[in-house]
Amino acid sequence: MNSLRKHRRICVLFTLVTLLFLFGDGESQHRARREVGIPDIPGYVTLKCDFHMHTVFSDGRVWPDVRAGECWREGLDAFSITDHVEYQPHREDVPTNHNRSFELARPSAAVLSLIIVRGAEITRRMPPGHLNAIFLKDIDPLETEDFRDAVKAAVDQGAFVFWNHPGWTGQQSDGISRWYDEHTDIYEKGWMHGIEVVNGGSYYPLVHRWCIEKKLALIGSSDVHAPINLDYDFDGGEHRPITLVFAKDRTEAALKEALFARRTAVYWKDVLIGGEEFLNPIFKASIRMKYPGITIDGKGSANIQIQNTSEVVYRLKAAGEVEHLRIPESITLYPYRTVLVRVRGTEDDFSGKMQMRLPYIIENLWIAPEQGCPVKLSVEVNFVPKSDD
Amino acid sequence: MNSLRKHRRICVLFTLVTLLFLFGDGESQHRARREVGIPDIPGYVTLKCDFHMHTVFSDGRVWPDVRAGECWREGLDAFSITDHVEYQPHREDVPTNHNRSFELARPSAAVLSLIIVRGAEITRRMPPGHLNAIFLKDIDPLETEDFRDAVKAAVDQGAFVFWNHPGWTGQQSDGISRWYDEHTDIYEKGWMHGIEVVNGGSYYPLVHRWCIEKKLALIGSSDVHAPINLDYDFDGGEHRPITLVFAKDRTEAALKEALFARRTAVYWKDVLIGGEEFLNPIFKASIRMKYPGITIDGKGSANIQIQNTSEVVYRLKAAGEVEHLRIPESITLYPYRTVLVRVRGTEDDFSGKMQMRLPYIIENLWIAPEQGCPVKLSVEVNFVPKSDD
Amino acid sequence: MNSLRKHRRICVLFTLVTLLFLFGDGESQHRARREVGIPDIPGYVTLKCDFHMHTVFSDGRVWPDVRAGECWREGLDAFSITDHVEYQPHREDVPTNHNRSFELARPSAAVLSLIIVRGAEITRRMPPGHLNAIFLKDIDPLETEDFRDAVKAAVDQGAFVFWNHPGWTGQQSDGISRWYDEHTDIYEKGWMHGIEVVNGGSYYPLVHRWCIEKKLALIGSSDVHAPINLDYDFDGGEHRPITLVFAKDRTEAALKEALFARRTAVYWKDVLIGGEEFLNPIFKASIRMKYPGITIDGKGSANIQIQNTSEVVYRLKAAGEVEHLRIPESITLYPYRTVLVRVRGTEDDFSGKMQMRLPYIIENLWIAPEQGCPVKLSVEVNFVPKSDD
Amino acid sequence: MNSLRKHRRICVLFTLVTLLFLFGDGESQHRARREVGIPDIPGYVTLKCDFHMHTVFSDGRVWPDVRAGECWREGLDAFSITDHVEYQPHREDVPTNHNRSFELARPSAAVLSLIIVRGAEITRRMPPGHLNAIFLKDIDPLETEDFRDAVKAAVDQGAFVFWNHPGWTGQQSDGISRWYDEHTDIYEKGWMHGIEVVNGGSYYPLVHRWCIEKKLALIGSSDVHAPINLDYDFDGGEHRPITLVFAKDRTEAALKEALFARRTAVYWKDVLIGGEEFLNPIFKASIRMKYPGITIDGKGSANIQIQNTSEVVYRLKAAGEVEHLRIPESITLYPYRTVLVRVRGTEDDFSGKMQMRLPYIIENLWIAPEQGCPVKLSVEVNFVPKSDD
Repeated sequence: MNSLRKHRRICVLFTLVTLLFLFGDGESQHRARREVGIPDIPGYVTLKCDFHMHTVFSDGRVWPDVRAGECWREGLDAFSITDHVEYQPHREDVPTNHNRSFELARPSAAVLSLIIVRGAEITRRMPPGHLNAIFLKDIDPLETEDFRDAVKAAVDQGAFVFWNHPGWTGQQSDGISRWYDEHTDIYEKGWMHGIEVVNGGSYYPLVHRWCIEKKLALIGSSDVHAPINLDYDFDGGEHRPITLVFAKDRTEAALKEALFARRTAVYWKDVLIGGEEFLNPIFKASIRMKYPGITIDGKGSANIQIQNTSEVVYRLKAAGEVEHLRIPESITLYPYRTVLVRVRGTEDDFSGKMQMRLPYIIENLWIAPEQGCPVKLSVEVNFVPKSDD
Repeated sequence: MNSLRKHRRICVLFTLVTLLFLFGDGESQHRARREVGIPDIPGYVTLKCDFHMHTVFSDGRVWPDVRAGECWREGLDAFSITDHVEYQPHREDVPTNHNRSFELARPSAAVLSLIIVRGAEITRRMPPGHLNAIFLKDIDPLETEDFRDAVKAAVDQGAFVFWNHPGWTGQQSDGISRWYDEHTDIYEKGWMHGIEVVNGGSYYPLVHRWCIEKKLALIGSSDVHAPINLDYDFDGGEHRPITLVFAKDRTEAALKEALFARRTAVYWKDVLIGGEEFLNPIFKASIRMKYPGITIDGKGSANIQIQNTSEVVYRLKAAGEVEHLRIPESITLYPYRTVLVRVRGTEDDFSGKMQMRLPYIIENLWIAPEQGCPVKLSVEVNFVPKSDD
Repeated sequence: MNSLRKHRRICVLFTLVTLLFLFGDGESQHRARREVGIPDIPGYVTLKCDFHMHTVFSDGRVWPDVRAGECWREGLDAFSITDHVEYQPHREDVPTNHNRSFELARPSAAVLSLIIVRGAEITRRMPPGHLNAIFLKDIDPLETEDFRDAVKAAVDQGAFVFWNHPGWTGQQSDGISRWYDEHTDIYEKGWMHGIEVVNGGSYYPLVHRWCIEKKLALIGSSDVHAPINLDYDFDGGEHRPITLVFAKDRTEAALKEALFARRTAVYWKDVLIGGEEFLNPIFKASIRMKYPGITIDGKGSANIQIQNTSEVVYRLKAAGEVEHLRIPESITLYPYRTVLVRVRGTEDDFSGKMQMRLPYIIENLWIAPEQGCPVKLSVEVNFVPKSDD
Repeated sequence: MNSLRKHRRICVLFTLVTLLFLFGDGESQHRARREVGIPDIPGYVTLKCDFHMHTVFSDGRVWPDVRAGECWREGLDAFSITDHVEYQPHREDVPTNHNRSFELARPSAAVLSLIIVRGAEITRRMPPGHLNAIFLKDIDPLETEDFRDAVKAAVDQGAFVFWNHPGWTGQQSDGISRWYDEHTDIYEKGWMHGIEVVNGGSYYPLVHRWCIEKKLALIGSSDVHAPINLDYDFDGGEHRPITLVFAKDRTEAALKEALFARRTAVYWKDVLIGGEEFLNPIFKASIRMKYPGITIDGKGSANIQIQNTSEVVYRLKAAGEVEHLRIPESITLYPYRTVLVRVRGTEDDFSGKMQMRLPYIIENLWIAPEQGCPVKLSVEVNFVPKSDD
C-alpha cells in the first residue's frame, strides 16, 4: 500500500469523525438538511451554489470540512472554498498550503453528495482587486508577481474566473464599483467570465448593469469567514447569498457548462436577480392558481386563491389595466402560503366566459437594476349580468 | 325583490365584514392560508376535514363565520359546524335556532372556496352518548324525544352519522370506550357510518379496533369550542385533529361518496391512523430517495439521502434483515427535511449491482392499535470488493 | 336559595367550563400567561390595559369570557368590553342586552385576578363619532336620542369617557382626525377625559398633539372584534395596542384615579407614546450598564455592554457630541439582549477618570408627534494616555 | 518598540477583524448576547461557565477566537479552551503549539469582558482517561511521559483539575463510569478537584454519587469541537451544558476560589444538578407568587398564579398532603410564564386565615441521582365557611 493511498484512507476515516455534527449521537431535526425552496425550470435543474468562502487556510475561522457540513445543511448542491492566495494572516500557525483546504473538504463533500470545485481567491490591491478562480486543478501556479499571470495560470487550467465585490468599501471607500483598464484587459482576453453582483450583505447595481451589457455571469457569494451560523439567522429566515445555476443535470460538468453559458441568477435576501428568461419560469413553477375559474356578478367581487409553493416571497404590483375587471394594486404571495386575491367587475351588464391574463410586475425579482420582472396571472372569469335581487 | 333574496344579499355584505381578519388592512403572512402538507395519493385527492365544532349557537364561544376563517387558514378543504341539538346553555342570550350557525357560516365558506356541510350533534346521555349527523338538509327534525327518532330523521335526509368520543371521561369516567346495545341497534340498522377514533387530545384504541372489525369510517375531530388558537399552538407546530378523506375530486358529492365508502384516515398530533392501503401511498408520495444509487466498498459504508416533502414526521424501525447490508435500527424522517442514512456492507468480497428493498415499520403510522405501517425503502446498491489500499 | 343566587352559582360553574382553554387537560406553555415585559417606574406600578373590545353582544365574534382569557394570556392587568350601544347587527340572533357581556365576562376575570370595568361604546355618526365610557354602573341609560344625553348619563355614573379612533377611515375617508364643535362642547363640559391616539393598526398624530395641548389622557386600544389571535401574530412578536396606566397599586380604584390624572402611555407595535416623565423612567428601569467602567487608551476604543431587560426595542440616535469621546451615531438595544457599544478616544494624551453622560434620542419613544425621547447613558471612563508600544 | 509589544498590537488589531461576526455591518439581534436566565443567589453571583472546548489547535474545527464570540452570545461569563496535549491530529497542518489557542482567544475575551482561563486536556488511555487542568500558567510542562507528572505539573501551577467524561463510550464501551486505582492515587494526593457529571449529551449518575461522597466539584461541559451552532439548536431552545459557579464576584480570582470551594451546579438540558443549598435558592429567586392571598369558600376552589422569571422549566410533583387543602399532583412552571394553580378546600365549615406551605419536589432539579429537590410554595389562604347560596 503506497503512501498516497494510506493518506487517503486516513482522510476518509477522519471525515467520519469530522461530520459528527451531522450524524452525532443525538439525531435531530437540527442536524438535517433543509432544501432550498426554489423550483427547477423547464429544461434545467436549479443548482444552489456558493463559490466564495474561507477557512483557517487563509483568513477564515473554520476547518475546511465545516464548509461542507454547512452547505449540506443549507440545501446547497455545489460549493467552492476560495482561500486567499496572497493573504495568509494565519501563516505563522498554519503554514501556507494552497491546495490543502480543498483536499480536507473533498471527502466530506463526497460523503454528502455535494459537488465541490477547487478554487482560490487572487487577492490584489484595486485595480484589479480580488478575483476568484474555480474549477482549478492546482492552486500553486497562481502565486505570481503580476496578477495577469495568476489569471492566465487559472484560465490555462480551464478555470471560470469572476471578479469579487467590486464595490467593497475595503477597496472603494465610497462603496461605488469602478471598472478599470485592468478589467478591460482581462475581459477582452476572455479571462473574466462573471462578477459578483452580490457579496454578503451588499448588492452592486453598477455590476448588474455591466453583466447585462458585457454578457457576464451574475454571481452571488457569501464570502463567509466565520462559522456561518454566526453571520446568518437561519431560524429567523435568513439565508446566505446563493448563485442559482440552471444546469442540464446535477454534475460538475453540467455545472461548469452552465456557468460558462451564463445561465445563472442570484438569490439574495428576499430578492432574485437575473434574466427574465430564468426568473419568469421560476415564478411560474412556484405558484398554483388553486381554483382557476371564478364567477363575477355585475360589479361584484370574487376571490382568486394563489398558492406559493416556494420559499421566495413574491411582491407584485399591478402593471396596467384589464378590461371588465378591477384588480388589486398590490399582491404579496408569502412563502409556502395561499392568499386570497379579490377582483371586481366593472360593468353591471357584461357577460361571457374569458381567460384573463392579469399584468403584474414582481418588484423583488430584478431583471435589471430597479427593474422588476413582468408576469401575467392567468384566470378564467365567468362574467354574469348583475342579478336583480 | 323578495325577502329571501334580500336576506342573502345582506348575508354576503355581512360576510365581507366578518372576514376582516383575513383581508384586514394590514395584509400579512399571518392572515394567509397554510396548506396541510400531506400529499394526494394515486386516484384520489386527500381532502382535509373537520366535522365536529361548535359556536355560540350551542356551547361554543365564537360566531359561526369564525369557523370558516379558521378552517381556511389551517388548510382545511371541508368542515361542518355541529352545534348540540339538545344542549343549549346560551339559550337565554341566543334563542335556539338549529340551522342558524350553518346559515351564518355558509357565505364565508363560499368566499373561501371551502366545502361546508350542514351538521348537528345529537346529544344524549350514554348510551348512546353523542352522535354527529352531517350532510343534513334541516336540523329541526332531529329534536325528538327518543334518540332513535333523531338518528332516523338524519338518515332519512341522507346524513352520514358517526358516534362521537366514545371514551370521553364526561360520560365514561374511566376513559374506556364501551359498546352498548343501543349502538348495536343503530349499527345493525345501517344508521352508524363511522366513529371518532380521535376527539381533541384523545385517541380511543378500542374504537380503532371496532372500526376495523365493523367496517366503519375512522373519524378524527377537533370538537373545538373556543377560538381554535387558544387550544392549539400552531406556531409551535400543533394542528387540530383532521379527518383525511380520499375523494375522487374536491366536491361535496365526492366527499360524501368517499365517507360512505370509508376512504378516510386520521391525522392526529404526529400520527396517521388508517388502513395500510392509504397510509402506505401517503408515505410513498411524501419521500424522495435523492441519489438512489450508492456504492459500497467491501464492509465500508455509504449514505442514502431521503427527503421528506410532507409535514408528517416518519419514525421508522428496522423490520428484518437484508442480505449483504447492515441497515440502521431506526431512521427519523423530519418534516420538510433531508436526512442521511448510513448503511454498511457485510462482506469484503461481495460484488454486484442490486435493487435492494429495505424493510421498515413506521411506528407513528397506525394501521391498527399499536401496529405500525410496513414500508420498503428502495435503493440501488453497487457492491464492489474491498479495495486493497 | 333565591333565584339571583342560583343564577350566580350557575355562572361560576359555567366559568370553569369556559376557561377550559386555560386549564384544559393538556397543560401546556401555550396556555400560560406571558407577562408584558415593561417595568414599573418609581412610585407606580405599570398596569397593562385595553379598554376597547367587542363580543357577540354587538358586532364582535366571540363570547364575552373569551376576552378575559385572551387578556390573561397576553399579560394584561385590566380590560373593558365596550360593545356598541346603538349598533346591534346580531340583534336578530342575540337580542340586545347591554350589560350582558360584562356580566358574562366578570366571573372569568375574577378567576384570573384581572380587573374588569364595565364599559360601552356610544356609536354615532361623525360628529361626534364613537365614544367609549368605562367604569359604568349600568349601560341601559346610555341608550338615548341625543349623544349628549348618552355622555351625560355616563358621566353621571362617574365614567371615564374617551373619543375613539378620530381618524378612522370609516368616518373620515381621508384618514385625517378632525375636531368638531361637538367635541368642544363635551370637552368644555369636562365630559371628555381622553382620546385614542392609537386604534388597532392606526396612530393619529393630530390626536397626539391635541392630548398634549388639551391635557387629555392618551389611550391605545385594540378595538378587537374577532378572536384576537386571528388579528395578531403573537408568536411573530406582535402584540395588541396597550394603554399603560401608571397607578399607585393594582386595584380598580387606583386604575381609575390614574386615568383621570392622565398618567398613561401607549404601547403600540415597537413604539411607546407618552410624556417624557413616564417614558424616560421606563427606559431607565429597562436597561443595565453591565460593566460600567471602561478604559480608553489614547485614541483607542473600548466597549460598553448594555443589557435591555424589557421587551421593547430601543432605537437610539446620537443627540450631540461628547468631549474626549467619539460615540456611535446609532445604537439598537434589542429586547432581552445585551449589545456591545464601541466608543473611541479623540486625543492621544488626555487622561483622567470621568463620569460621562452620553446624549441620545430614542426614536421610537414618542413624547410628541415625530419627537423622540431624550436620554443619557451614564458610563465611567478612565482615559489613559496613549501607550507607546 | 520591542517585538512582544509589536506582536500584541497585531493581536488586538486582528481581534477587531475576528469579531466581525459580532460587530458586522448589518447590526442585528442575532449578533447580540442572550443572557442565561438563571438568577444570582443570596451572597453569590451565579457565573455561567464552560471549561472544556477545542479548536483547530488540537482536534477542534474553529479558530480560537470563535470560542470567545460563541460564549459571549450565549451569555457565558467565563470559559477555558482545553485543547488536547497529546492528541494533535492537525499537527501536519497546524504544528503543535500548546499555549497558542489561549493566546489567540485572549484579546477577544478581553474585548467582550469575558473571563478566560488557560487550560489543557491531558489525554490518556483509560485509566485515567482524560483530565482537564485550568488556571494554568504554561501548558508545555504538561507534555510528559507519565500522566502523574502531567497532573503534578498542572497542580504545581495552581491548576484546578477535573476528570472528563468518565463514562465516555470511546473509553468505556458500555457507557459505565469506573473508578480505577489511578483515580484513587491522584484523588488522595489532592490532585483531583472535580469530575464532569455532564459532558455534551451525557449525564453520569455514578459520577454524581462520587462527587457527593468524595466532596468533588460537579462540572458540566460542552466538549465542543465543531462551531457550536452545528451542535445545538439555540433557536429551538437548546443550550450547551453549563457549569454554574457561585462566586463572590465576577473575577477570575473569585471564580477560582468558588471552584476549589466546590460551589458549583450544572445546567444541562432542562435539568439543574447540584446541592440543595444552591438549587433551592435558585428556585426561590426564580419564582414570584403573583397575588399571594387567596380565599376559599368551603370546598370551593381558588387559583394561585405563579410567575417563573427564569429560563428553567420547573416540574413539580406534590410531596405530601396539606391540611384543609387539596393541591394539584403536578405543576409545571414554564420559563418566563405565569401559570394558574388551582387548589380546593376540603371542608365545608372550616374558617381562618393561614400561611400555608405547599410541599413539592422539583423533579428536574437533581440533588442526587434520581432525587429531586424539595421546595415549599408559600401562600396565604383565607378559609371561609361555605356560603349557602
